[in-house]
This record gives sequence, C-alpha cells and structure tokens, in this order.
Amino acid sequence: MRIGILGTGVVGQTLAEALANKGHEVTIGTRAPQETLARTEADMYGRPPFRVWHEQHPSVAFGTLAEAAANAEVVVNAITGGGSLEGLKAAGEANLAGKVLLDVANPLDFSHGMPPSLFVCNTDSLAEQIQAAFPTARVVKSLNTMTASVMVDPKSLAGGDHTVFVSGNEAEAKATVSELLRELGWTDILDLGDLTSARGAEMVLTIWVSIMGALQTPRSNIKIVR
Amino acid sequence: MRIGILGTGVVGQTLAEALANKGHEVTIGTRAPQETLARTEADMYGRPPFRVWHEQHPSVAFGTLAEAAANAEVVVNAITGGGSLEGLKAAGEANLAGKVLLDVANPLDFSHGMPPSLFVCNTDSLAEQIQAAFPTARVVKSLNTMTASVMVDPKSLAGGDHTVFVSGNEAEAKATVSELLRELGWTDILDLGDLTSARGAEMVLTIWVSIMGALQTPRSNIKIVR
Repeated sequence: MRIGILGTGVVGQTLAEALANKGHEVTIGTRAPQETLARTEADMYGRPPFRVWHEQHPSVAFGTLAEAAANAEVVVNAITGGGSLEGLKAAGEANLAGKVLLDVANPLDFSHGMPPSLFVCNTDSLAEQIQAAFPTARVVKSLNTMTASVMVDPKSLAGGDHTVFVSGNEAEAKATVSELLRELGWTDILDLGDLTSARGAEMVLTIWVSIMGALQTPRSNIKIVR
Repeated sequence: MRIGILGTGVVGQTLAEALANKGHEVTIGTRAPQETLARTEADMYGRPPFRVWHEQHPSVAFGTLAEAAANAEVVVNAITGGGSLEGLKAAGEANLAGKVLLDVANPLDFSHGMPPSLFVCNTDSLAEQIQAAFPTARVVKSLNTMTASVMVDPKSLAGGDHTVFVSGNEAEAKATVSELLRELGWTDILDLGDLTSARGAEMVLTIWVSIMGALQTPRSNIKIVR
C-alpha cells in the first residue's frame, strides 16, 4: 500500500519505519524538507537530527507534505496537534480527497506549562475538526493513546495483550486502518463508533500523562477487560 | 470503620451494601429521607424504589446527608455529579472537616442529550471543585471509572485483573481509601498523584460511554498494562 506520513517527529519516524518494514511504499513529509535536513542539533528529547534517521532509512521516500500525501492511498497525520490543521492544509485538500486519513495526533496544549491540557475536548475533538476542515477525507482516529514504540510493536509490551481504539464515520476506512493495525501486531482493536468517539480517545491523554508520571515510563497501555 | 455514604442511587446502595458486608458501620444518607422512603415507583433504570432496598438491608443505617456524615470516619460522595456540591453543603462542612472524603461521582452533563458531556474537565475537575469548597475535607478521587457492580466486586470481572485509580493531595487519606479498596478485592491500585490527576480520571468517562456502547455492557474496565 502507498502510505504518506505527515510529520517527521518521533511518531512519524517510528510509523514510517515500521510500515516500510511491513513492505509498504512509504513517503514521509514535512513542511520544509531542506530546512529539516539542514538541522544538525538533537531534538528536545535528545534524538539525533532527522537527517541521520533519513540516511538510515533509504527505503522511506522523503519530501514535502503535499508530496507525501499526493501519491498515497492512506495518509497518516503524525503532525503535532497544534500544527495539524495547518499541516494538512499544506498537504493539500485535493491530495487528501477520498483517502483514508489516519489521525494519530493529540490536541495537547503546552502553553500553560506541564502537565499539558487539551486545546479541544469534551464536545469536540481534533479528529472532528480535521474532518470538518477536510470533508472529503475519510478520517479515522487511532493509535493516539500510546507511545510511538508501542504503536508499532504492541507485542513488545505485555505480549500484546492490550487495546487499540478506532473511531470514524466510515466502516470501510476503519477496516483499512484495522488491517494496518493487525499487520503491526494488534489483536484487540476496539471500534468505538463514529468520529465523535474520538473525543473520548483524545481525552485519555490527560490520564495517560498522570500514568506516565506514576509509572515513570511512557511504555504502558490500556487493556479493556470485559 | 464508620462510613457515611451520601446518595441513595445505585452507586450509594451498592457501596453501602458491600462495605456493610465487610463489617463496617455504614449509614446511607439522602437529602429528604422521608420523601425517599415514600417513593413507590421504580427508578429510571427499572430498579425497585429505595424502601425495598432499605427493608432488605437492616444493617445499613439510614438518615439525612448530615446524619450520614456526622458520625463517619470516611464519607463517600455517591451523589450525582451535578448535585454533589449542593449535597455536600447539606451534609455540612463541619461534618466533613478532617475526614477522608472519597469522591466517586462524575461531572456528567445530560442537558445536551446522549451521550453526556462533562460539565467540568481539562483544566479543572469535580474533585478539585469539592476540595476547594471544603478545604478541610481530605478528598480522594477513586472508583469513578467503572460501573457500581465492578467497584465492589472487581474479581467478578476477568478475575480482578484490572486497575482502579486514586488521586488526592494526602498520602494518608489515599492509604485509607486504598485499604478499603483492597477489602473489596482490588489488587492493582494505581496512585495517579495529587488531586489535579482527578481530571484525567474523570475524563475517562467520555471513552467509557463509547466503550459501553461498543461492548453493549457497562461491565468492562481498564487494566493498565506495563
């Protein structure tokens, strides 16, 4: 499958590598590719600059947001929550039309310090804002409730016995995303319903931050026991 | 231990019965006891009127909110979210002073129809509002993330292999609540931190409602795998 990943942060890199390893044709995109490649400093988490990752992953094509989206069958929004709407605009409405848009971003607001709050929640969600702004995209919310290394390798945590949620208005789009999730190793894929259910999935982030603090690791996840 | 349960709904009844069965001296309170006893119709869930439950549970004392709180060492807020602050006021600030106040309520707002939204979240919580209104009470948030029958009998679901959260500003108050939780059968009690972490615990309700819809049962719970 041709997959365009929007965003070159740790989430974008991790998803791009994992999906390329599964045999998909992956392009990762960023707003200003030359600027991103020119960076020489480590990022805020101490990770090496993008160009190091880029050199180590020759099978992942690299370009603008529009280039990543243009050729894709599935587009992944791995841009920061606050930058998502602008980034998707740069990707281009025509390049998103009719495509599955897997939104893994969270509407985190760091402007009031730590812990972050959400800039949209309760009666709306980032996923719904994206769907409203790009009505012809087929938005599916998923994978936003765990850290990147768990997203792409659930079996590395508790043998994979935990849950990933999907929300979206179209059964077929959710089925496409669920197939990708199964390829990554997910076995408990819980369909929460239409895209309004992304509110709850995004609101999980608030307790997730507390849990990360309590456990002193981002490597935990929710299992829905029933 | 002397425990006062505020609220005679399904949550209050379930907690009162379970804690009395563990040997605690339990009083359940409501705003207008004679009115509550006089009801003859089933409640909105089809449950029999309170007086039937009351007759079946002679070991649980019954009185006003103030009477339930006055003699208690631990007070449980099992009033609806929207009625909590007013109900606690009726219980009386002096009757709450210095006591552990276990808040199991959720700030659900049904005024815009189903599914409910939250009337406070993100940068504040019901638990924090209660703490601010009753600064000498020792508020602990817990048990609000699952249905009543699971609260009091976690082993009845997946053998008890799932998680209950506690949030509060005082370690000793959280220890008291945790001891009660262990008596009920909880083994994975996760301390999220101070009372601001109740925001995340309350915001779980939004996804909880979707999960209940997806699974067609309220009998599920979160296990934090790590």
